[in-house]
Amino acid sequence: MTLKKVLIANRGEIAVRIIRACREMGIETVAVYSEGDKDALHVRLADEAYCIGATASKDSYLNFTNIMSVATLTDTDAIHPGYGFLAENADFAEICESCNITFIGPSPEAISKMGDKSVAKDTMKKANVPVIPGSDGLIEDIEEATKLAAEIGYPVVIKATAGGGGKGIRIVDNEDMLIRQITAAQQEAQSAFGNAGVYMEKFLTGMKHVEVQIVADKHGNVVHLGERDCSIQRRRQKLIEEAPCPILTEDIRSAMGEAAIRAAKAVHYSGAGTLEFLLGPDGNFYFMEMNTRIQVEHPVTEMVTGVDIIKEMLSIAEGNPLSFTQEDVSINGCSIECRINAEDPERNFMPSPGEITFYLPPGGPGVRIDSAAYQGYKIPPHYDSMIAKLIVWGTTREEAVAKMKRALAEFAVEGVSTTIGFHLKVLEHKRFLRGDFDIKFLEEHDVNDPHS
Amino acid sequence: MTLKKVLIANRGEIAVRIIRACREMGIETVAVYSEGDKDALHVRLADEAYCIGATASKDSYLNFTNIMSVATLTDTDAIHPGYGFLAENADFAEICESCNITFIGPSPEAISKMGDKSVAKDTMKKANVPVIPGSDGLIEDIEEATKLAAEIGYPVVIKATAGGGGKGIRIVDNEDMLIRQITAAQQEAQSAFGNAGVYMEKFLTGMKHVEVQIVADKHGNVVHLGERDCSIQRRRQKLIEEAPCPILTEDIRSAMGEAAIRAAKAVHYSGAGTLEFLLGPDGNFYFMEMNTRIQVEHPVTEMVTGVDIIKEMLSIAEGNPLSFTQEDVSINGCSIECRINAEDPERNFMPSPGEITFYLPPGGPGVRIDSAAYQGYKIPPHYDSMIAKLIVWGTTREEAVAKMKRALAEFAVEGVSTTIGFHLKVLEHKRFLRGDFDIKFLEEHDVNDPHS
Repeated sequence: MTLKKVLIANRGEIAVRIIRACREMGIETVAVYSEGDKDALHVRLADEAYCIGATASKDSYLNFTNIMSVATLTDTDAIHPGYGFLAENADFAEICESCNITFIGPSPEAISKMGDKSVAKDTMKKANVPVIPGSDGLIEDIEEATKLAAEIGYPVVIKATAGGGGKGIRIVDNEDMLIRQITAAQQEAQSAFGNAGVYMEKFLTGMKHVEVQIVADKHGNVVHLGERDCSIQRRRQKLIEEAPCPILTEDIRSAMGEAAIRAAKAVHYSGAGTLEFLLGPDGNFYFMEMNTRIQVEHPVTEMVTGVDIIKEMLSIAEGNPLSFTQEDVSINGCSIECRINAEDPERNFMPSPGEITFYLPPGGPGVRIDSAAYQGYKIPPHYDSMIAKLIVWGTTREEAVAKMKRALAEFAVEGVSTTIGFHLKVLEHKRFLRGDFDIKFLEEHDVNDPHS
Repeated sequence: MTLKKVLIANRGEIAVRIIRACREMGIETVAVYSEGDKDALHVRLADEAYCIGATASKDSYLNFTNIMSVATLTDTDAIHPGYGFLAENADFAEICESCNITFIGPSPEAISKMGDKSVAKDTMKKANVPVIPGSDGLIEDIEEATKLAAEIGYPVVIKATAGGGGKGIRIVDNEDMLIRQITAAQQEAQSAFGNAGVYMEKFLTGMKHVEVQIVADKHGNVVHLGERDCSIQRRRQKLIEEAPCPILTEDIRSAMGEAAIRAAKAVHYSGAGTLEFLLGPDGNFYFMEMNTRIQVEHPVTEMVTGVDIIKEMLSIAEGNPLSFTQEDVSINGCSIECRINAEDPERNFMPSPGEITFYLPPGGPGVRIDSAAYQGYKIPPHYDSMIAKLIVWGTTREEAVAKMKRALAEFAVEGVSTTIGFHLKVLEHKRFLRGDFDIKFLEEHDVNDPHS
């Protein structure tokens, strides 16, 4: 099958990114937009554009009915969901299927399996993908729990199954403490969440967020494109990503890549996807979750592999086998991405929507801009606050860091607050420069002090 | 020696390009500017900036005294001349030397030798670099001329030594005609130019402009970075350049590369330089001239080799050996550059200076922008009319062409006329798509008719 027309069920830079790939492949594009987005760049760049509802996402970008109406009326062959919104919605993927429109992503079954955390964890264990050691489900029996804790080694952590956001968590150092804490944790969970269920996991520290990009076709071929280090996070939101991970050894790299391929094969995956792992200082890594869609940070992988992941997704959706094998993939140099947001780092990253009164992104060799911003654009307060993804490539990590600093310093955005200055500080920090940072980096270090 | 501070004796995109490279290498930058350029981007981006005179180039960018004063007062270690202005001025290079300031380029002797066409041709012949076959100097003796013409083969061309711009040229098909035309040509040259001297060359048609980028250090190492096809020209001004040349065989590529290295070694060249050749449909190529400086179109070579040529120039100026050997260089994919000028193609490419009222360059994977433009910038009428160099990279030429078309279509410039639409037409032309074009392409084909 050849795709003639693709609808992009998204907005912002990822909608622009997909339109660009389609155009280069000769595929027509249909944009959809909310009432608040009529001046958005993706609307200007697409071949056709249709308003699908009010500004609130539930009325527009999450509005199945209106999106499917536009798809049907425009004779769309396929829908690319981007990330966020409907990208990991198995129901939407199923509706596409039932309307004979290709959903550019994996099957509804694969989305569902990976979307349910406990099913995903079980599936991964069966596929011999390392998961965080701990209890199988809830702790029923204290004796069994102490036996297991001895096995996986202290400290362990007890978590309320109904908890979340850091609540209902107890760190336990030894058996005495464990016996006391289980009961206390169950009582607390009962009163706090109305559910006494608790489970146990190995307590991990110094972990990096390292994820593996995979692509899989509809014929069973799966290839991994190496990893990304996304440990620079604030409240679990990634801010800086890079490829390759600066501290990964070749052995761990291939073990992680092979685990990612086993994971994808276990759910008969097709399309582009990402296996997120926690990597410990001891070199052990554990499955966290799979993102069954394109990710914000995919460009760093594109820069070091030369693969255009969005084009590959479109080609896979057409039913083609992958355009390369594992042997064809090599990692060349280093790429870093900074997410430039309209936020005020001095005021706790408060969003700073409004009109961009001057806009000049950096250019020159090794600099890539993925953005939907322009001078005069009003960043709406209703969606995410991204202005641009600034991506650089260098022959070495040192060169990439120097290039990113140069590009950040050059990036001119006026009218709204931005995170540009914040990124510059992170890039000056001695731990960042050494590659010596984990997911707690921004919590535990002061970016204003490069030696902290 | 480590360069601490570099003065850029230029303006526009190339000044910006050099500032970027310096910044990434931790070298401070000094910009100089004319009165007409006080709002220019290179002035904003440099660490220091000094006005060196009135708007006319002779008063500012060609003003030795003022430039050297700024260099001395700012403790500048080296001067990068960019292209144009003082870039191929041996006197300026010599003055730098005498002031103990490194001129980032070859020696004054190498500049002089390559700057004088007849000396350059002689030097190349001695270095076994093919030159256009013809008379050694002026025709003195008709008998010798007929002998030589028989040797190199008809048609030949008789040119007045004092002519130029296409004047005083006669194409000659056979010996009878030659005997008659030499005398007539001499008489005509005498009356037209006050100089009867004429010389003979082989008449060449269907020639491509193919040039080889070389880099040479101060220790005698010379490496070539492959070739560029710059045949899309209008009145000898290049408009579109690409690497590699779409029709070059590996044999000709290495013969040309080796000839370029011999040429550079013959003048003890150091720095970045370009050997320009004419390539015939029969695969023969002939030396035209050497540009002893960085060229406008250097980015396409950077995109396919991964080498940052400006950084390499700076490193060479520091006295370092080349950072790579010939064996390290490989050509990956295809890169194309379109020079986006503020000109009106509908009105004979008349310059269109003025304020850019909206400016949004394209982005995304494989797109590079080298520019000094921004929204609100007033393009002055006094210098060249370049708005931006748009450079793309693709895994294949087909992908690069598709990407360039996508990027051109996206490139938004309002307030001035541009050549964007013209480039789009060239990129749709069937001969361009086949790689089947020579330096007469724009004269002989109508870009409005893709099948002409």
